[in-house]
Amino acid sequence: MSNFNQIVELIADDLGAVEAKLTEHTASEYTFVDMAVQHVVEGGGKRLRPILVVLSAKVCGYEGSDAHTLAAVVELIHVASLVHDDVLDEAAIRRGRETLQTKWGNKVAVLVGDYLHARVLSMLVSRRADDPAMAILADTTQAMCEGEVIHAYKSGDFDISEAEYLKIISFKTGKLIAASCTLGAHLGNPSETQQIEALTTYGQQIGTAFQIVDDLLDFTEDSDKLGKDAFGDLREGKLTFPIIYARSVCNNDEKHKLEKVLHPDTDETEAIDFVKSLFRRYGVEPHCLKAAQSYADRAKAALEVLPETPARIALEQLADYVVSRES
Amino acid sequence: MSNFNQIVELIADDLGAVEAKLTEHTASEYTFVDMAVQHVVEGGGKRLRPILVVLSAKVCGYEGSDAHTLAAVVELIHVASLVHDDVLDEAAIRRGRETLQTKWGNKVAVLVGDYLHARVLSMLVSRRADDPAMAILADTTQAMCEGEVIHAYKSGDFDISEAEYLKIISFKTGKLIAASCTLGAHLGNPSETQQIEALTTYGQQIGTAFQIVDDLLDFTEDSDKLGKDAFGDLREGKLTFPIIYARSVCNNDEKHKLEKVLHPDTDETEAIDFVKSLFRRYGVEPHCLKAAQSYADRAKAALEVLPETPARIALEQLADYVVSRES
Repeated sequence: MSNFNQIVELIADDLGAVEAKLTEHTASEYTFVDMAVQHVVEGGGKRLRPILVVLSAKVCGYEGSDAHTLAAVVELIHVASLVHDDVLDEAAIRRGRETLQTKWGNKVAVLVGDYLHARVLSMLVSRRADDPAMAILADTTQAMCEGEVIHAYKSGDFDISEAEYLKIISFKTGKLIAASCTLGAHLGNPSETQQIEALTTYGQQIGTAFQIVDDLLDFTEDSDKLGKDAFGDLREGKLTFPIIYARSVCNNDEKHKLEKVLHPDTDETEAIDFVKSLFRRYGVEPHCLKAAQSYADRAKAALEVLPETPARIALEQLADYVVSRES
Repeated sequence: MSNFNQIVELIADDLGAVEAKLTEHTASEYTFVDMAVQHVVEGGGKRLRPILVVLSAKVCGYEGSDAHTLAAVVELIHVASLVHDDVLDEAAIRRGRETLQTKWGNKVAVLVGDYLHARVLSMLVSRRADDPAMAILADTTQAMCEGEVIHAYKSGDFDISEAEYLKIISFKTGKLIAASCTLGAHLGNPSETQQIEALTTYGQQIGTAFQIVDDLLDFTEDSDKLGKDAFGDLREGKLTFPIIYARSVCNNDEKHKLEKVLHPDTDETEAIDFVKSLFRRYGVEPHCLKAAQSYADRAKAALEVLPETPARIALEQLADYVVSRES
């Protein structure tokens, strides 16, 4: 996406500083620990959350290095959750690289996730007592786990409603994206509560848009582009936004067939073919994109209270990018 | 152990307060999350680390409720590490109860561990800026992970030396036990560095004694008494203190056989019989107990700088209990 590249270009120095913090704060003196940790920390990814911290800070008038530290903190929390997700999902590829458990087994993968959480704690140690970062992040990490547990628990429940699912993803994905914006905004003038609330709302809305598109890409893009296995959710029988929508509009026969193909025993090609035919028939892809765009639009609307700086324009473009991205 | 019961009796009110904090700070408004979390938090265990926080605080003259909060924090870190260990080890039973992954699968188990870490972060949010707890715990959780990763990485390495192994267990087990003592001691007069150092040393030494005995009990006690599967380490081919010692004193034929029986393909009964015969022949059990007792004795010696209060006597008894315990 050319808009996305422009945003990255705009804050290239900041993102360089974030990468330096990531390396600095995750280093281990134990060679193997360091190798395993750097494998996931340097593993690319869009760095969406760091970008949000930096842009939110900038739009609120903050330009200092604490944005880089907090950006590194939220990215580490995100990477730790990906590492644990991959253990849970038995994923082989993530961000175009072999996952830790493929390379070194489940033990190492669970432990590297825990190690990253320990390093996050270290990074928060020296903050001022009145700093809101810890409280925000404690609340965020708790909600992320609750969302994940509820989703895991509901995984056998074919009747999950769109509303329930949206609540789960607001926890699993939305909370950390919103926290990235809140933390950045707080670095400006902490008494500007209107600005902080606007950016938090922005983050919540693009978080939902992001996850809807993520769910969709699992069905529409190939593994190379995604940097992870395509049809992964389908293979696991995970109910995600596109499937929940398809189920709500298809006929009873299709509903039964859908339930059947989501079962892990079903032949994968059969499952993919059926779901693709259902998606075409009911326009699932345009429906999801429209839903995601409506969240992106609400996100952009929330920004209206903020000054029209390059950072605000970048945040607006980012909201659209979240919907139009192809990986 | 009657001595252990006396210690528990001595601080029964404190331990009751710790249990209340554990429940209060781990509650989730989501029924299923709460059920899964309480399954492990209420799951018994000796509460060794809370006992150490409380006694270390008392021996340094502190009697307030912050000891209960910090005791709950260290216990939650410990429980989280057990939950993740059990995922890694595919354990079916822990503390006499079904493990989370037996009841609800690996996903829930990994996530409940993460949830407990999130709650620990919440519990630390409101502490004063000059409070050393966060720095101590950040350092401790990092070292625990490093110890675990190194142990996982070395699991295929039959040549691990006793010194290397002792270093690993000082990280995996010793750090959190030592931190429990350090945190308690800090609640007294923080400028009494001699007392704080003495209790930290005490904790490190009993931590090592504790793990050596833990390793031994895996071979000598039955599953009922242990509250977890006996011979679990052997079944996984884990090299622990008794095996590392046995290997260092047996002849070459036995060494080869030992290497063979530690392979997961070996028949379990054959493996157990061979290891038991080796233990009898080379007095592995008395050797381990003697080694553990020497650490317990060093722990007790470290306490000499502290006032001879009931709390100090309890700590001395606890050091001996760690060696003489049967589960």
